[in-house]
Amino acid sequence: QGILERLDAGEIVIGDGGFVFALEKRGYVKAGPWTPEATVEHPEAVRQLHREFLRAGSNVLQTFTFYASEDKLENRGNYVAEKIKFPNMYQIINAKGGQSVTDSVKNQLGLLRQQWKTAERKLSFRKQLDVFMKKNVDFLIAEYFEHVEEAVWAVEVLKESGKPVAATMCIGPEGDMHGVSPGQCAIQLVKAGASIVGVNCHFDPETSLETVKLMKEGLQAAKLKAHLMSQPLAFHTPDCGKQGFIDLPEFPFGLEPRIVTRWDVQKYARKAYDLGIRFIGGCCGFEPYHIRAIAEELAPERGFLPEASEKHGSWGDNLSMHTKPWVRARARKEYWENLKPASGRPYCPSMSKPDGWGVTKGAKELMQQKEATSEQQLKELFQKQK
Amino acid sequence: QGILERLDAGEIVIGDGGFVFALEKRGYVKAGPWTPEATVEHPEAVRQLHREFLRAGSNVLQTFTFYASEDKLENRGNYVAEKIKFPNMYQIINAKGGQSVTDSVKNQLGLLRQQWKTAERKLSFRKQLDVFMKKNVDFLIAEYFEHVEEAVWAVEVLKESGKPVAATMCIGPEGDMHGVSPGQCAIQLVKAGASIVGVNCHFDPETSLETVKLMKEGLQAAKLKAHLMSQPLAFHTPDCGKQGFIDLPEFPFGLEPRIVTRWDVQKYARKAYDLGIRFIGGCCGFEPYHIRAIAEELAPERGFLPEASEKHGSWGDNLSMHTKPWVRARARKEYWENLKPASGRPYCPSMSKPDGWGVTKGAKELMQQKEATSEQQLKELFQKQK
Amino acid sequence: QGILERLDAGEIVIGDGGFVFALEKRGYVKAGPWTPEATVEHPEAVRQLHREFLRAGSNVLQTFTFYASEDKLENRGNYVAEKIKFPNMYQIINAKGGQSVTDSVKNQLGLLRQQWKTAERKLSFRKQLDVFMKKNVDFLIAEYFEHVEEAVWAVEVLKESGKPVAATMCIGPEGDMHGVSPGQCAIQLVKAGASIVGVNCHFDPETSLETVKLMKEGLQAAKLKAHLMSQPLAFHTPDCGKQGFIDLPEFPFGLEPRIVTRWDVQKYARKAYDLGIRFIGGCCGFEPYHIRAIAEELAPERGFLPEASEKHGSWGDNLSMHTKPWVRARARKEYWENLKPASGRPYCPSMSKPDGWGVTKGAKELMQQKEATSEQQLKELFQKQK
Amino acid sequence: QGILERLDAGEIVIGDGGFVFALEKRGYVKAGPWTPEATVEHPEAVRQLHREFLRAGSNVLQTFTFYASEDKLENRGNYVAEKIKFPNMYQIINAKGGQSVTDSVKNQLGLLRQQWKTAERKLSFRKQLDVFMKKNVDFLIAEYFEHVEEAVWAVEVLKESGKPVAATMCIGPEGDMHGVSPGQCAIQLVKAGASIVGVNCHFDPETSLETVKLMKEGLQAAKLKAHLMSQPLAFHTPDCGKQGFIDLPEFPFGLEPRIVTRWDVQKYARKAYDLGIRFIGGCCGFEPYHIRAIAEELAPERGFLPEASEKHGSWGDNLSMHTKPWVRARARKEYWENLKPASGRPYCPSMSKPDGWGVTKGAKELMQQKEATSEQQLKELFQKQK
Repeated sequence: QGILERLDAGEIVIGDGGFVFALEKRGYVKAGPWTPEATVEHPEAVRQLHREFLRAGSNVLQTFTFYASEDKLENRGNYVAEKIKFPNMYQIINAKGGQSVTDSVKNQLGLLRQQWKTAERKLSFRKQLDVFMKKNVDFLIAEYFEHVEEAVWAVEVLKESGKPVAATMCIGPEGDMHGVSPGQCAIQLVKAGASIVGVNCHFDPETSLETVKLMKEGLQAAKLKAHLMSQPLAFHTPDCGKQGFIDLPEFPFGLEPRIVTRWDVQKYARKAYDLGIRFIGGCCGFEPYHIRAIAEELAPERGFLPEASEKHGSWGDNLSMHTKPWVRARARKEYWENLKPASGRPYCPSMSKPDGWGVTKGAKELMQQKEATSEQQLKELFQKQK
Repeated sequence: QGILERLDAGEIVIGDGGFVFALEKRGYVKAGPWTPEATVEHPEAVRQLHREFLRAGSNVLQTFTFYASEDKLENRGNYVAEKIKFPNMYQIINAKGGQSVTDSVKNQLGLLRQQWKTAERKLSFRKQLDVFMKKNVDFLIAEYFEHVEEAVWAVEVLKESGKPVAATMCIGPEGDMHGVSPGQCAIQLVKAGASIVGVNCHFDPETSLETVKLMKEGLQAAKLKAHLMSQPLAFHTPDCGKQGFIDLPEFPFGLEPRIVTRWDVQKYARKAYDLGIRFIGGCCGFEPYHIRAIAEELAPERGFLPEASEKHGSWGDNLSMHTKPWVRARARKEYWENLKPASGRPYCPSMSKPDGWGVTKGAKELMQQKEATSEQQLKELFQKQK
Repeated sequence: QGILERLDAGEIVIGDGGFVFALEKRGYVKAGPWTPEATVEHPEAVRQLHREFLRAGSNVLQTFTFYASEDKLENRGNYVAEKIKFPNMYQIINAKGGQSVTDSVKNQLGLLRQQWKTAERKLSFRKQLDVFMKKNVDFLIAEYFEHVEEAVWAVEVLKESGKPVAATMCIGPEGDMHGVSPGQCAIQLVKAGASIVGVNCHFDPETSLETVKLMKEGLQAAKLKAHLMSQPLAFHTPDCGKQGFIDLPEFPFGLEPRIVTRWDVQKYARKAYDLGIRFIGGCCGFEPYHIRAIAEELAPERGFLPEASEKHGSWGDNLSMHTKPWVRARARKEYWENLKPASGRPYCPSMSKPDGWGVTKGAKELMQQKEATSEQQLKELFQKQK
Repeated sequence: QGILERLDAGEIVIGDGGFVFALEKRGYVKAGPWTPEATVEHPEAVRQLHREFLRAGSNVLQTFTFYASEDKLENRGNYVAEKIKFPNMYQIINAKGGQSVTDSVKNQLGLLRQQWKTAERKLSFRKQLDVFMKKNVDFLIAEYFEHVEEAVWAVEVLKESGKPVAATMCIGPEGDMHGVSPGQCAIQLVKAGASIVGVNCHFDPETSLETVKLMKEGLQAAKLKAHLMSQPLAFHTPDCGKQGFIDLPEFPFGLEPRIVTRWDVQKYARKAYDLGIRFIGGCCGFEPYHIRAIAEELAPERGFLPEASEKHGSWGDNLSMHTKPWVRARARKEYWENLKPASGRPYCPSMSKPDGWGVTKGAKELMQQKEATSEQQLKELFQKQK
């Protein structure tokens, strides 16, 4: 059964977690470039992470191809580009009973440069698509778009394949970088041919669900139908601006105190379900145990637990055999549900001001015309405006 | 070259991280029992983690045998005990150029029960030792002891092997559970035959270094010599009581906001080095990227970087190519060194009161005579005293 | 010169601070009833506080008549009502050179009860007005309204006096309790005859300024003119709901950690001025030194410092004579402007969830029909809904 | 009855609060110099504060003479010295039924300069004493000493008067600035003739009680007898170093988030009582309502409530008439006792690092020889060491 048949039948589809962040911590991805050369350099390490998500309950295993478009790889230096050319791409693991295997188009455009012509950009998507078609993936996900215009181009190209297309944007409730509201984004994506729409990355679960809610309301008002999907960060980001966690001063090497607990994820999964979302997964920061938490929370609806739950007691009930009575007292749902976990960091604040807010319009324009501007000029400008 | 030759020559030896916690998050270890049956059930998952620590710079790879003493396993149910009998123990990976491979006796006694006789306890250590000798490990680590008395028994048994013996206790600056000071603990362990002494688990890096400092001063006052070792938690625990992080209300499923950053680890590595510690590693919570941070901080002294540093820029310098100038501005040591990372959790406190502090002496005695007391009685007692 | 002549001439008028909160801490007002019987019981204590605000720079000294409407006082018990009958009202201190003296109608209606007829309510305002007219106050302030409808009634009555009328609502950016937006509220108040409009109480300076900004924009869009006024709380309340600080769990006896510093007030004064507000004061929590901070911040514009500044160095410059160099290093603006003051409360969170959010519509209706409902029923209902 | 007769009879004596801090906020004292010229410039303002403490339950009203020694005043400029010469000293208010009136020697020496001879210092104390004797105070308090040596000199001089003498040091559990332990300090003070010993200022209630506990244990071990006294700060200071709150970056203008609640004070009063302390008051930050909280907490033991309790319901019971049920739900002891009040400051940490910790020994010595060193040199030194 394909993804759409399942969703149409009311099934819950559980996504996977964040590959670049997990593999960065394991030593196989470099923060900054974020390119996926590990698929050819250390395939076993990538395969092991896929295995863990599968075991944790993921129904969808995305290919590890973030930033793997040709132009991006060239941008990162010939070394990487040569090693990862698409025909060498990591052979994803076989599906196990009931789990589908799929591929995604992971893409990131940063600041959209106006001189890029639609035709060129579409060509890039088309090259990526060719690879995925040869591998015969089950369906396609166009994800991590900050501008709906570009997401629409991607959907249009992917639709040529005849495969089901999902599309997620990395936006918050304020909408895309040009100020298009989440509702309008969803409408444009569905009109372009997406069967599943939603958000991924950039914001925490709570904020992401707010955004998907706005998408849902937009579609309803426009009398359009689509399945909903959410794959948020595993970091608390109540203090983000419009551009999400990248502007937080902690990004990307000081995010630890923001990592969500498994209980936070259970709340997220329940809330997503109640909102009508049926494709529920995660993005950066989601580790296998976070995905398991989705699968455990929704086990009553799905009728089964994931394999990895053999190593996990529901709501901590595996603590009931502890020798200390006050630890045994933690073996219950009410305890973990209501815990307000301390940071152990009394010298740190609980929220941060995102960077870049004070940057004037002038500087932003300069940045967008970066090609014409020396690095030195930018630095001076930024210092002056700080 | 053996571990002692290296340490005697002034080399830095880098330990590994925390297996039970890392594998719990990957879905292979059950919190509560914490037993290492993954070595037989999913050896590839364990092997992958070993590989990651090796790549991150670990010189010592401990066997994954926490809680694997026969009595503990029986305690956890026959199923586990049968599967993991020592002869089936996971075959650890081969050493690579320059790295030694070793085994540890990981043990946990919880509350020491007075009826246990020295003879019986030593027998248990001896059984474990037999396995390790067959595998021909390089040296032995007796770790995670709350009572120095028992640690001494372990060292005495391990010394019979003729291998070098290291011994670490899971204590803080207040000393062991019977009130023996860290200085006194160190003295007793060295007199029993340990060549390397220090602490592991239960407390954060800062607290652990305070404890090792007290051990060092104790040894100096007693004119004894030994190498120093520290393998702390990767969680900030300034609010712990004498028994460490187990009594924190966040243990073990809500510790995320306490996870240390790579920069915290670099500070720890430097401070440990300056204190004269030469065996520097981690325990629960330490992931491969934390170990890499030790290796990167001490690269000037050691003269080389670990393999995994090919995927990591020193102090974030890999951010220098970012498109946003304010993210590029994070590509420097001063930035990360001074960052006070926010938790994104404004509804949570920064410190917690450990549980169990209000439990009266009477209750503690009752707990220690648990065999003679019904669970119900304990619960009532605990509730009454809360 | 009257208040309007001054404001029309572009002068800044500085209000006073919060009498009920300051006098509660001094021992003369009871939290809960909040009635101003201190004016007859301990007039010297009230007079002293007036003197302090005057000295701190207040141009307007409001009468201490909060909750002094006849119906409220009866509600609080005959004892109070008898003692405070209006003819006995505290004789306010004389104006000193340049400072005007005024009276206000301070009122609080709690939840508006539908059976109250406009006519009755207006009668109550009229009775209060009679007293103020006998005292020949300079102008009138109708303040602390949660419903614009009622504020309009008050303005209509006060206009009959021929005195200038100011009107402030205790609302936030979300508008009044019936959902009327700040912009709409301002329009209705000005149309009813108010020459000065704005907000007081219930929210912190930052939130209050946001609300006044919305009022200003509303008036501009409607092509109406009025002077703007703000008298916010001296408590940080970023976590308030629509009903303001009363619903915070800390209200009213645990608000200490939220008290704003003098530097927070200086920022507020500057921001208020830049927004075009010219009647700048405070409400609950504002002590004399907070008012002085307004006067000091705006001294360049006003051309003089208040009397109390003889006991205060600008931006801490009085610390320059301290014996410790690190304390002397605090004698500068940059230091205090950028300080992020710690709470010294690591076991406390930085934000709270307001109470009452989970109360269902049914319970709210019941509360509003309180007369017909036993206290017991309400309690049960509330417990059930918690 | 004198103070000693009362204490000997087991009575609780309630002290007063912090005059310099309270009057600074009211606009009459300048932070930095901290001199008490308000007694002659604005006697009514000082008298009103005395009245409020009396009404709140204080049995002892200290004269407002902090920093009023001749040498200190000269140090602050002739202007002040002339205005406050001792014969002009503020006439303290009369005692009311049952309350005694007293005077104190409030003194502050900053860093003790070695060239000061005992003889000279004693002369200064003697001059102050003469004034107090003329006013016929009930007993004498020598307070705010950082060095026990100097406190002993003060006690020796004061003993010449024949009046009872109390002596409190502004130290924490680590002892005085020369490293004399609290226990040793207490012993020396009692041997010098003090009948009442304890601590005041510099640390929060919890820390101060720890210090008094150490004093008590010291006296017991030395088989000496004295009454115990504590007058701590009304600021939470868990993060202080040895020199107390002056080194905190928030001192003195950003301490607001640290202010203790009335409930914190009730806990302090109870704990102080249980520890055997019978002279219980406050220092900087203690406002009248804090003193009332001491009197209310100990009302069962004392048998009566203070006057100001007519305006205060025990444990918030005055909220029981509130219109909102969730506010009424706060009218109970359990609520306020367990509240963890939020700061409303998510961008601020909960603890600070005290300044001056990084200052090397060399710099400290330089500072102590300040006379011989230019300000410029000190600044440079400090900057270099930061």
